[in-house]
Amino acid sequence: MTRYLLERPHTLVPLTFFADRYDSAKSSISEDLTILKRTFQDRGTGLLETIPGAAGGTRFLPYMLKEEANVVIADLATQMATADRYLPGGYVYMSDLLGDPAVLRQIGRIFATQYLNQRVDAVMTIATKGVPIAQSVASLLNVPFVIVRHDTEITEGSTVNVNYVSGSSTRIEKMSLSKRSLKPGANVLIVDDYMRGGGTISGMISMVQEFDANLVGIGVVAESSDHPNRKIGEYTSLLRVDANDDTVTAVPGNYFEQIYQ
Amino acid sequence: MTRYLLERPHTLVPLTFFADRYDSAKSSISEDLTILKRTFQDRGTGLLETIPGAAGGTRFLPYMLKEEANVVIADLATQMATADRYLPGGYVYMSDLLGDPAVLRQIGRIFATQYLNQRVDAVMTIATKGVPIAQSVASLLNVPFVIVRHDTEITEGSTVNVNYVSGSSTRIEKMSLSKRSLKPGANVLIVDDYMRGGGTISGMISMVQEFDANLVGIGVVAESSDHPNRKIGEYTSLLRVDANDDTVTAVPGNYFEQIYQ
Repeated sequence: MTRYLLERPHTLVPLTFFADRYDSAKSSISEDLTILKRTFQDRGTGLLETIPGAAGGTRFLPYMLKEEANVVIADLATQMATADRYLPGGYVYMSDLLGDPAVLRQIGRIFATQYLNQRVDAVMTIATKGVPIAQSVASLLNVPFVIVRHDTEITEGSTVNVNYVSGSSTRIEKMSLSKRSLKPGANVLIVDDYMRGGGTISGMISMVQEFDANLVGIGVVAESSDHPNRKIGEYTSLLRVDANDDTVTAVPGNYFEQIYQ
Repeated sequence: MTRYLLERPHTLVPLTFFADRYDSAKSSISEDLTILKRTFQDRGTGLLETIPGAAGGTRFLPYMLKEEANVVIADLATQMATADRYLPGGYVYMSDLLGDPAVLRQIGRIFATQYLNQRVDAVMTIATKGVPIAQSVASLLNVPFVIVRHDTEITEGSTVNVNYVSGSSTRIEKMSLSKRSLKPGANVLIVDDYMRGGGTISGMISMVQEFDANLVGIGVVAESSDHPNRKIGEYTSLLRVDANDDTVTAVPGNYFEQIYQ
């Protein structure tokens, strides 16, 4: 039962389903769920919500407690702030962290906490490094994710294209998203790995508008402290990462104010 | 305990860890694990391996039973074989399926079954659509994944570049991978979404060789039946998908012979 619920976050499972599956009375399933609920709560795993009535059931909403999130972020900052991550031009190497399933799971849990009680229909990101973050968040919210691309690939079918100003280079660039991937009115959460000038994020916001969809939030793993002409409204960042003079510094971002009020 | 093990597949957890965490005797932890082992086995979730001795503990190895895999693949084939997936040029739209966390989890479980007893140090894929598959497989094998790119991005640092012949277009293309991402001697599993001529896969095989790493296997979600000049040795495909005359056909691939001997 634990496994079944953990694998299907944000999905309502009727009690009768478990009763049939384990050949038990609904009352004993109910008792087991009460124990599970307490365990999840004690361990800070998530919320086990019970909805009464004929259309009711139980639903597992994963979250991460503030204390754990602080430890996770501090640990991530320590891993990020090493001189060998410094790349020419003030860039930071973080592909190893974004290719580590355990790190991605933690990042996903933190963002899923923010949208615990909000309706999200799809997670949007841009190729390539945003993809693992989108997948991790989407998987915990149990919604699909869509990938905006810098190129137009033949396997995407007809696309919607948006021009945007890349903040770092002040060049005009193009991004595209398959026309089939979002429905009008969908509630979209944008996530990405790194935000500097915010140009790419602005482009994705335009994309959400082009699809007549609603923006519910923006989450980035890291942002730079230095951001000339950034025009992004509210967003959540887990870290503030900067690369100057051959060194990399990393401190917690604004997630604390945004997620754990 | 269930949650802890499920979230850390292929990781050895000492019994003393659980004993401390739950403030129980090692013997009762042992008994609980025996029950868990049987439940996992009955449900076809995976193997709970117990390693005796001071350096021992318990380890959860996820797998999928043949019966379930057959149902999952048949269902995937049904979803794939719809006329509206047909794209001009004989391509198939599958971004929606590869953006569905539940589908990705199942695909990951099938490939993880194949490498249940083999050592894999990293999963390699190519941007963009291979990424979600790599992440799903890597997460269940508890190893990092690395992303080969078509472009060389500044945030990757120094890269190793490989030229390859794109089978579909017979053009020479370039792929690159950050030099930091793989260690010599690493056991690498290559995964991708679709294989037609096999040019991209061949390129990734060269990449594995350039890093002095070992290829342990190749897994693709779908392959085409029609593959002029394909020169790939052994590989596993979950589906055989073809697009001709405005229709898409999908049948199970060779996974049955490869994974469930």
